[in-house]
Amino acid sequence: MVKVNENYLKLKAGYLFPEIAKRVNLHQAKSNPTTLIKLGIGDVTEPLPSACINAMQKALNEMSTIEGFKGYGPEQGYIWLRNKIAENEYISKGCQISAEEIFVSDGSKCDSSNILDILGNDNSIAVTDPVYPVYVDSNVMTGRTGFSLSNGSYEGLTYIPINEDNNFKPRIPEGKVDIIYLCFPNNPTGATVSKDELKCWVDYANQNSALIFFDAAYEAFIQDKNIPHSIYEIEGAKNCAIEFRSFSKNAGFTGVRCAYTVIPKSLTGNNLNGEKINLWSLWNRRQSTKFNGVSYIVQRGAEAVYSDQGKIEVSKLIDFYMNNASIMRNKLTQAGFKVFGGLNAPYIWIKVPDKMSSWDFFDYLLDKANVVGTPGSGFGLAGEGYFRLSAFNSLSNVNDAMERIIKI
Amino acid sequence: MVKVNENYLKLKAGYLFPEIAKRVNLHQAKSNPTTLIKLGIGDVTEPLPSACINAMQKALNEMSTIEGFKGYGPEQGYIWLRNKIAENEYISKGCQISAEEIFVSDGSKCDSSNILDILGNDNSIAVTDPVYPVYVDSNVMTGRTGFSLSNGSYEGLTYIPINEDNNFKPRIPEGKVDIIYLCFPNNPTGATVSKDELKCWVDYANQNSALIFFDAAYEAFIQDKNIPHSIYEIEGAKNCAIEFRSFSKNAGFTGVRCAYTVIPKSLTGNNLNGEKINLWSLWNRRQSTKFNGVSYIVQRGAEAVYSDQGKIEVSKLIDFYMNNASIMRNKLTQAGFKVFGGLNAPYIWIKVPDKMSSWDFFDYLLDKANVVGTPGSGFGLAGEGYFRLSAFNSLSNVNDAMERIIKI
Repeated sequence: MVKVNENYLKLKAGYLFPEIAKRVNLHQAKSNPTTLIKLGIGDVTEPLPSACINAMQKALNEMSTIEGFKGYGPEQGYIWLRNKIAENEYISKGCQISAEEIFVSDGSKCDSSNILDILGNDNSIAVTDPVYPVYVDSNVMTGRTGFSLSNGSYEGLTYIPINEDNNFKPRIPEGKVDIIYLCFPNNPTGATVSKDELKCWVDYANQNSALIFFDAAYEAFIQDKNIPHSIYEIEGAKNCAIEFRSFSKNAGFTGVRCAYTVIPKSLTGNNLNGEKINLWSLWNRRQSTKFNGVSYIVQRGAEAVYSDQGKIEVSKLIDFYMNNASIMRNKLTQAGFKVFGGLNAPYIWIKVPDKMSSWDFFDYLLDKANVVGTPGSGFGLAGEGYFRLSAFNSLSNVNDAMERIIKI
Repeated sequence: MVKVNENYLKLKAGYLFPEIAKRVNLHQAKSNPTTLIKLGIGDVTEPLPSACINAMQKALNEMSTIEGFKGYGPEQGYIWLRNKIAENEYISKGCQISAEEIFVSDGSKCDSSNILDILGNDNSIAVTDPVYPVYVDSNVMTGRTGFSLSNGSYEGLTYIPINEDNNFKPRIPEGKVDIIYLCFPNNPTGATVSKDELKCWVDYANQNSALIFFDAAYEAFIQDKNIPHSIYEIEGAKNCAIEFRSFSKNAGFTGVRCAYTVIPKSLTGNNLNGEKINLWSLWNRRQSTKFNGVSYIVQRGAEAVYSDQGKIEVSKLIDFYMNNASIMRNKLTQAGFKVFGGLNAPYIWIKVPDKMSSWDFFDYLLDKANVVGTPGSGFGLAGEGYFRLSAFNSLSNVNDAMERIIKI
C-alpha cells in the first residue's frame, strides 16, 4: 500500500502567491480587468537585455547545425559561465570563490529548497520572520518541523522577527541553531544588513558549527557602497555559508530561468560520528544524480549578462526599477504611510492603517484602487500589519498605482 | 552543529556516467582524442528540428519587447503546451489524460527522482535489474534503502532481474511492494513490454494498492504497432501509475531541457490513518513550492514538436537513429555477438565475450577500438556480462565504430 509523505499534510492552505492569484481572479471576474495594476509578486516586466537576446539567438543557430549542436551539458553548468560568474561576481570584488564552487541551476527557488536534500533531518532551523515562504514550506515538506500552530507558525522552527522594534535587524538567537536562512537585501521588507552586522552572523555560525543559507537574489539593487553584496565579503564566511544568486531580478530572467548556488569547497557538515563531511561533494553528487543542467541556450544568455553591453543594460534595468521604488517611497510617504525598504531593494514595505489586517488591506487596495500587493502576514506572523509593494512594473503603472492609492 | 544527510554516505563510488567520463579522459590523455567514438551515454547528436528552432527564435523576439515579454510562467507549464501534449500524446491515442494532469518540467531525471518527495519513506521499493541508476540512487539518498552490499546492490530494495533467462520480461514480485519502477522501451536493455504483460503489472498494482512509476522516455522509438507507448493504454492504469515523458530523445532536447510527468487526478496514496490522499494535489504543491517552471523559450520549442513540420522532423530523427540501431544489430550479429534490443529502442544490449566483466569489456573496447560504450554492471548486478551501445550518433560514426569492433 503506497504511503504519502505525511509532512505535506501539515502544510497550511495554498502557497502565498497562488492564494493571491485566486483572489485577483475572483476580483477580475466582477470588475474591469484591464485596469488592474500588479505590484504583488516580485516579477520583472521590462524586456530582456538585447545582449542576452543576441547571445541566445546565436546559441539557437548553433543548435540548428551538426557542428554546433549541444546535447547534455555538465550538471553543474558550463565552465565558461561559471568562470564569468566567479570573475565578475566574486574575484573582481575581492571574494575568493572559484568557478568550481559555483553550481548553475534553473532557479533559486529550486536551489534554496533542494539544498535541504544533503542535510540531516535533525538540524534545528532558524528563519527570519517575515520570510520568503519557500524556506518554511520546504522545511515542513521534509519533516523538519512539527505541526502548524493556530497563529500560523510551525512547531520546531525558530523564528527571528525583523520589524520596527528591532529596526529590521534580526537578532542573533540566544540558543543554538544549526541552519539559519538570511536574505539580504531582504524579501519582503527591503531591509539591508551592514558588513559588521553580517560579521556577527558569520561569527555565530562559525562558533556554533552552524550553516548560513544566504539568499542574495536582490544584491544587484544595492545602492549604498557599504552594504555587502555577498556574504563572502565577510571573513570566515567560506567556512559557514552557502550563497544563492539568480539572474531573475537583475537581468529579468524570471521567465528564462537561470540561477546559481555557491558552495565553497572548505564548507563541511558533520556525520553521526562527528566527522567532517565536505558539503561541496554532497551537492555535486545531488546535482549529478537529480538534475541535468540548465538549457544551453539559457546559459549563453546568462553569460551575456557579463558582456560589456550586458553590464550596461543590466545596470539600466536596475536604475529603472529603483527609480520606481523611489517614486513609490515618496508618494506613499506623502500620503501618510509609514514606509520601509525601497532604498537598496525593489520592495517597499508599508505599515497598514490601524485596525486592518494585512489581508484586509490587500482586499481593500484591490477593491478600491485595483492594485495588487502582497499581504505581510503571507510572509509570516511578524509580517502581520505590513504590506509589500513591488517596484517591478512600468513607470506609468507605478505612477498610476500611486495616484490611485493616494486618492482612496 | 550542522549534520549532513547520512544517506548520501551510503552511495557507492560515482554515478555511472561521471565514472565513464573519468576513464575516457584518462584514455584520451594518452591517445588521439579525435578518433574516439562515443556510443556510451544516450545523448542525441543531430541538430534540433527547424520547427523548434523557429518557434524559439520567435519566443526570443517576444522576450525582447515590452508587449511580448514573459516573466514567471505557471509552475506546471503553460496550458497551451499541456493542451498540445494531452491532445497529441494521449487523447488522440485513446488515453483519457487531461492537460491539467500534465506537469511540464526541465527533465525526466529531475521528475523521476523528485517524485519521491511526495511519498512516505516507509514504502517498499522495487526496481528492475539492470536499471537506470537514478532510480536507485535517489532512493538511497532519501533513506529508502539500507547500506550497499558487497555485490553492489542495496539492502531493502527489491530487484527484479531482466535478462536472457526470462527473455527480458520482469516477473511480478511474489511479495508485496508499494512502488515499482518500470521503464519501457527499456533503458538499458532495449527490451519492450506488450499490452498483456503491462496489464499484469497494472493489475498487480491495483490489487496491492501499489504505485507504478512508468518511464516512457523512449516511446517514440517503438516500431511495432502492438507495443504500448503509454501505460494509460492499459485499463486501470489511471488508478495506479505515474508516467514520465521527455522531449530529450525524440526531439533532441537533451541540451534544451524539457520533459513532463503525468499524474492522473484519480491517483491516490494513503496517509497513516489509511485515508486516501490525492497525489496530483501533493505534486502540484511540490512543484509550486520547489520549482519555478520551464523557460518560456523552451516551452515554445516543445510546443513546435506538435506542429505539422515538427512532427515530420521528429519522425525523421527517429528513423535516422533507428537506422543506426539496425546497422549496429546487423554488424554486431555478423561479428558473432549475441545482440538484444535495438528493434524498438535506441539501445543495443550485447552479451560480452566469455570471462570478461562489463568494465573489462569497456576498457577493452576503449583501448582497442577507441569506442565508448556503457558497461552493463553500471546498471546493476544483473547487468554484469552485458554492454550497452547507444544508436545516438552520426551514420558515419556508427559505421566506423562497427568496423572497428568487428576488426578487433
